[in-house]
Amino acid sequence: MNIPAPYLLMLGESKDPLAIKTARGIHYWRPEKCMGQLRLNDEVPSLDLPDIDVQTATKEGAKTLVLGMANAGGVLAPQFVPYIVEALNTGMNVASGLHQRLDAIPAIAEAAKASGASLFDLRHAHGTLPVGTGKKRSGKRLLTVGTDCSVGKMFTTLALEKQMKSRGLSAAFCATGQTGILIEGSGIAVDAVVSDFIAGATETLSPACNTNQWQLVEGQGSLLNPAFSGVTLGLLHGAQPDALVLCHEANREYIRHMSDMPIPDVADIMELAVRLAKLTNPNPRFVGMAINTSALSEEDAKRYLADLSSQYDLPATDPVRFGVDNIVEHLIHVFEE
Amino acid sequence: MNIPAPYLLMLGESKDPLAIKTARGIHYWRPEKCMGQLRLNDEVPSLDLPDIDVQTATKEGAKTLVLGMANAGGVLAPQFVPYIVEALNTGMNVASGLHQRLDAIPAIAEAAKASGASLFDLRHAHGTLPVGTGKKRSGKRLLTVGTDCSVGKMFTTLALEKQMKSRGLSAAFCATGQTGILIEGSGIAVDAVVSDFIAGATETLSPACNTNQWQLVEGQGSLLNPAFSGVTLGLLHGAQPDALVLCHEANREYIRHMSDMPIPDVADIMELAVRLAKLTNPNPRFVGMAINTSALSEEDAKRYLADLSSQYDLPATDPVRFGVDNIVEHLIHVFEE
Repeated sequence: MNIPAPYLLMLGESKDPLAIKTARGIHYWRPEKCMGQLRLNDEVPSLDLPDIDVQTATKEGAKTLVLGMANAGGVLAPQFVPYIVEALNTGMNVASGLHQRLDAIPAIAEAAKASGASLFDLRHAHGTLPVGTGKKRSGKRLLTVGTDCSVGKMFTTLALEKQMKSRGLSAAFCATGQTGILIEGSGIAVDAVVSDFIAGATETLSPACNTNQWQLVEGQGSLLNPAFSGVTLGLLHGAQPDALVLCHEANREYIRHMSDMPIPDVADIMELAVRLAKLTNPNPRFVGMAINTSALSEEDAKRYLADLSSQYDLPATDPVRFGVDNIVEHLIHVFEE
Repeated sequence: MNIPAPYLLMLGESKDPLAIKTARGIHYWRPEKCMGQLRLNDEVPSLDLPDIDVQTATKEGAKTLVLGMANAGGVLAPQFVPYIVEALNTGMNVASGLHQRLDAIPAIAEAAKASGASLFDLRHAHGTLPVGTGKKRSGKRLLTVGTDCSVGKMFTTLALEKQMKSRGLSAAFCATGQTGILIEGSGIAVDAVVSDFIAGATETLSPACNTNQWQLVEGQGSLLNPAFSGVTLGLLHGAQPDALVLCHEANREYIRHMSDMPIPDVADIMELAVRLAKLTNPNPRFVGMAINTSALSEEDAKRYLADLSSQYDLPATDPVRFGVDNIVEHLIHVFEE
């Protein structure tokens, strides 16, 4: 999957800033890919991109209309269909992270067929995937490992990519979820592949490369999340990481959407991840801890991170507040010197 | 999925006894479901069932034609299509564990539509599955856990069911693979579900039940198999087992199809399984070890099992050679007394 840029970002019709989280992520990490935004009314939060319509976007060279808005139940509301059809008619592609397949809507399928443009349904893997082999590949890999879902694994991985590049390293983000794929323009949604192929999909996503290159694989779920642990373990074995970064949210007490399941212990997750990762990498090592400290004051956050850092003898940071240079510094020390 | 019996077993056209492994399993475990066999020539090995044709089977009440033969690449050879169409025309259902979908073959899809009979494609999950919740369910569950694929997990689980029933316990086999589903007539092929739903599928397969009932969940893969570990962990968390049975093959040195990956250590798998299972069950315990000792002489097998038993302080057996009563005895001691 390779989604052509530049993008026209569809922001939808909701006043809720959370509804445009995906579009915000694309704009934050890849502003150069975003030509403009399409809002269905003035109350929709703006990303400070030009408001342009489909016709204008096409004239200015936009290649893909990206459905960047969340939608109740993952179903496409009928009022969006005319915009999608219009984009297809002008020759633009359309990319969607919704559960409902774009080509399941006849007007959209017909317009795509007529124009020859592509529909990218990110939740639906296309093509044939291999099963995993576990064979060691050349190049170096880093994987973010979380105590739970939604603790900042994608943000951390992208922040590491940016910082590593700025330090002159060769680093590439390997997207494993919808938002990551829209940001990068390529990737595989591992939670959407048939379960026999989780590790194989991850191997495909991070193939053998030059020995000085780093592939930064976006983590998913948690080894101790009762719903998604299988995805996490397949991803760990497929990524065969040399380096691991722990992601956690300070003060989160329970697993997301499971009010009776305490959040796993950081030490437990780290020990399990290293132990299990050894199946496909002889020497996997944690190189840092990335913590979402948004629930803490800046002073408390600094104290919390200092405590973690001394407890685990690793750099600890909040990527949003303090960046990830201390982790990259340590990674260079461990692997590059 | 609920496949109506009695079955007419299609054995195909190959001389290779391994090609009818699935049919042999169905006949071995559920002879009462098997009305007859359909062989395309006399060289095909026989299961000592009556050779009957589709018309006769239908007249005698057969409900489902079961495609019990392996096929290169999982594709249905064209010479089988007329038999399938004939079965559908007489009103029989058809069940298949092949990768290729039956309804992707136009003649089959049309015949099924015309007759109203059902096509059971076991590798393709139907319907909507929930994501896992990890919530504790009433009743008791046992899961077979292996050091690798194809070490006897299905056989062991079915042997335990039979033996537990003969000891007066309430026990039900929960099938998680194609052969198991054909044997039981119901189940979910967990390796064929989208990876987000592995645990949820397993929860659906082994729902809350009476506190005196045992659900015996067929294990898949291994926590330390680089290709399939994700399926195994999702199954472990979804099954929330009270009791675990270790399955292993004596003298297997390498992971199946991976000549450079040594088979995991039995102790390692057991320790990992208990540790990970604790996420969804407060007190998971191994109650026995089921070993395929076919590579050993009977004397060596007995010595091997005695050594394992004393090392792990658990009953150890080869279910094929010596049955599983020692495991059931121990399970009754631990859970029922």
